[in-house]
Amino acid sequence: MKKIHLNTSHPYDVLIERDGIKKSGEYIAKVTASRKAAIITDDIVEKLHLQTVRESMEAAGFECTVFSFPNGEQSKCLAILGKIYDFLCESNITRSDIVVALGGGVVGDITGFAAASYLRGVEFIQIPTTLLSQEDSSVGGKTAIDIAGGKNLVGAFKQPALVICDSDTLKTLPESILSEGMGECIKYGMIRDEKLFELMESHSIEDIDDIMDEMVYTCIDIKRQVVENDEFDRGERMILNFGHTLGHALEGWHNYTDYPHGNGVAAGMCMITDKLAPQLSERLKKCVEAYKLPTGSDIPMSELLPFCVKDKKNEAKNINYIICNEVGKSEIVKVPFAEFCRLMEG
Amino acid sequence: MKKIHLNTSHPYDVLIERDGIKKSGEYIAKVTASRKAAIITDDIVEKLHLQTVRESMEAAGFECTVFSFPNGEQSKCLAILGKIYDFLCESNITRSDIVVALGGGVVGDITGFAAASYLRGVEFIQIPTTLLSQEDSSVGGKTAIDIAGGKNLVGAFKQPALVICDSDTLKTLPESILSEGMGECIKYGMIRDEKLFELMESHSIEDIDDIMDEMVYTCIDIKRQVVENDEFDRGERMILNFGHTLGHALEGWHNYTDYPHGNGVAAGMCMITDKLAPQLSERLKKCVEAYKLPTGSDIPMSELLPFCVKDKKNEAKNINYIICNEVGKSEIVKVPFAEFCRLMEG
Repeated sequence: MKKIHLNTSHPYDVLIERDGIKKSGEYIAKVTASRKAAIITDDIVEKLHLQTVRESMEAAGFECTVFSFPNGEQSKCLAILGKIYDFLCESNITRSDIVVALGGGVVGDITGFAAASYLRGVEFIQIPTTLLSQEDSSVGGKTAIDIAGGKNLVGAFKQPALVICDSDTLKTLPESILSEGMGECIKYGMIRDEKLFELMESHSIEDIDDIMDEMVYTCIDIKRQVVENDEFDRGERMILNFGHTLGHALEGWHNYTDYPHGNGVAAGMCMITDKLAPQLSERLKKCVEAYKLPTGSDIPMSELLPFCVKDKKNEAKNINYIICNEVGKSEIVKVPFAEFCRLMEG
Repeated sequence: MKKIHLNTSHPYDVLIERDGIKKSGEYIAKVTASRKAAIITDDIVEKLHLQTVRESMEAAGFECTVFSFPNGEQSKCLAILGKIYDFLCESNITRSDIVVALGGGVVGDITGFAAASYLRGVEFIQIPTTLLSQEDSSVGGKTAIDIAGGKNLVGAFKQPALVICDSDTLKTLPESILSEGMGECIKYGMIRDEKLFELMESHSIEDIDDIMDEMVYTCIDIKRQVVENDEFDRGERMILNFGHTLGHALEGWHNYTDYPHGNGVAAGMCMITDKLAPQLSERLKKCVEAYKLPTGSDIPMSELLPFCVKDKKNEAKNINYIICNEVGKSEIVKVPFAEFCRLMEG
C-alpha cells in the first residue's frame, strides 16, 4: 500500500492499494470514532462495488445506510442534492458520523458538497472508482454541483477525511471511461512533470494497466503539492486548469451531458497549445490520440467563447488561462476577456 | 455610529447607526474593490428599503441587480436557493463581486449560504432589517436553509464582509415581529448579562424604542465574544442555544411555518427553566410576557421530544442543552437523549 499525506487545513491520507476497498472498513475505522455511516453511490457502481465496501464496513463495526442515484453528470444537480440531504436526515446522521462517497467524480463531487453543507459540515470519505476521480477529483477538497448556467458553479472547499484508491476497481471500467481519465493525467504531465509525460507517451490505452499505479501515484503527488500551496484556489492552483477553460466551454456547448470532462480537457489543451505554443502541438496531440481522446473540436470558436465567461477563476472582465511552453512547465496568464477572444479567434 | 469589530477567521465590522442604510453604498465601497453587486431581498423589504439601499449603492458607483422572493420562512428552501444561484449566474457575479442580503433572518440566512457556495464562495454583506436579524442572525457567520426534516439543517459557516444595522428600519416592523426579536435578546441577558436583563425587564414592548440601541449593541457584543472564542460551533458557542432545543421542536411541530423562531426561543427558555431552574421561572416569564411572547406551550412534551433529536449540536445518542441557574450565567449540559426525555417529561 502506498500513502500520500496531504497537509491541508484538515490533513488526511490518500491510500493507493490494489484490492484496497476490501479493507475500506478497517481504514475508515481509523479516522472516525463513530460507527455509523451513510454511503452515497450511483446505480452502476452500486452493482459493482457496494457489497464489497459494505461488508468490509460492517465487519469493522459500522452500521450503514445507502443512497444510490442514477449514474451520470445530469445527477450532479440540486434535485439529487436535496434527496441526499433528506436521506442523511432520515438516517439520523449527526456531526460526529461519517459519509462515504463510493463512485466516480459525480458521486464524489455531489457527496462532498452534501457533506460540507449538511449540518454545516460532516466528515466524509472518498472511495473513487474511476481513473478521473482517483488521480484528480477525489483529492484536494473541491466539491460541487452543476446548475443550468454552468458546471461546478456551486460547491464548497471540503477536504475528505480519507481517500481510498483501489486501481483494481478500474478493471471494471469501459475503455471510454479510462480514456476520459487520461485527459487529466496528460494534463499533470504537461503542467509539471516531463517524466510522467514520457511514461504516458511511451504507452497507450492498450497497455495502460502497466503504468496505472505509477501514473496515479504521480498525478496525486503533483496535485498534493499544488493544493498544499493554494488550498483555496487563489493563485497557483489555477495551474490545474490547463485545458479547462476551453474544455468547460466544450462541455457547456454540449449542455454538460454528452461530452465527458476529460475529453474536454484533452481537446482544450490541444486547442490552446495550437494557438499559443504550436511547437508542442504535435507531441501533445500524439499522446492525446494514443489514449483515444479528441485533439480539437469542429465547433466554431465564436460559439465556444461565450461559455468561457462563466469560469469560476475569472474576475470581472479578465480571464485567467494556463499555457505550457515546454512539457512539464506551465504558467498562469491573466488577460482582458476581449484579448483572450482575439488570441483564440486569430 | 457605533462599531463592533469581530476578530474571526475573516474579520469584519458591524456598524450600528440610525439612518445607516442611507450610507450603505459608501460603507460597502470600503470593503470591496468591485463595483458590481447582487442584492437579494424579499417582497416586503423590497417595498420598504430597496430604493434607499439601491440609490446609495449606485451613488457609490455600484452596478446593482436585484432578486426578490416571497417573504417568510417557507422561502428558506432549496427551491429558492436554486433560483438565487441562477440569478447570480445570470448577473455574471464573479468571485471578486459582492452579494448583499437586505432583509430579515430568512434573507440573511439563505443569501449567506448562496454566497458561501456560489463559485465556492463570494463575499457578502448583511443589511438586517428586523430586530432578530440585527441583534442575532446577521452576526457570527451561520448561514442556512431548511429542509423537510428540520430547520437550518443545511448551511455553511461564512462570515459576512460587513454588517450594517440601522435601527430606524425597525420602526416599520409590525409589533409581532419586534416581539419575536425579543426572544433572542432576553436569551442574551439570561446567558451572559444580568444588567442587560434588568434593562429589558424594566421596559416592555410599549417603550422598546427607548432601549433599542443599547440593547442591540449589547446583544451583538455578547455574540462577538462567544463567536470569537468558538467560530465553528464546537463548544462554547452552544451556549447561544439556550431555549433553542425545545424552541426548534416547537417550530418543527408547527412545520416551521406559523411559529416564529423568537417565540420558540422564549417558550423553550421558560419550559427548560420551569423544569431545571424553577427558582428563576417567575422572573423570566414576567420579562417574556412584557414583550408579548409565549411562556410555554400546550403541546404535550411527548410530541415535542422527537423533534429535539435533529438538533445539529447533538452527537449520536447524546443531547446538549443549556441551562441558566442564575440570570446572566449559563452552562452546557450533555446527557443521553433518554435522560433528557425523562427530565423534560418528569
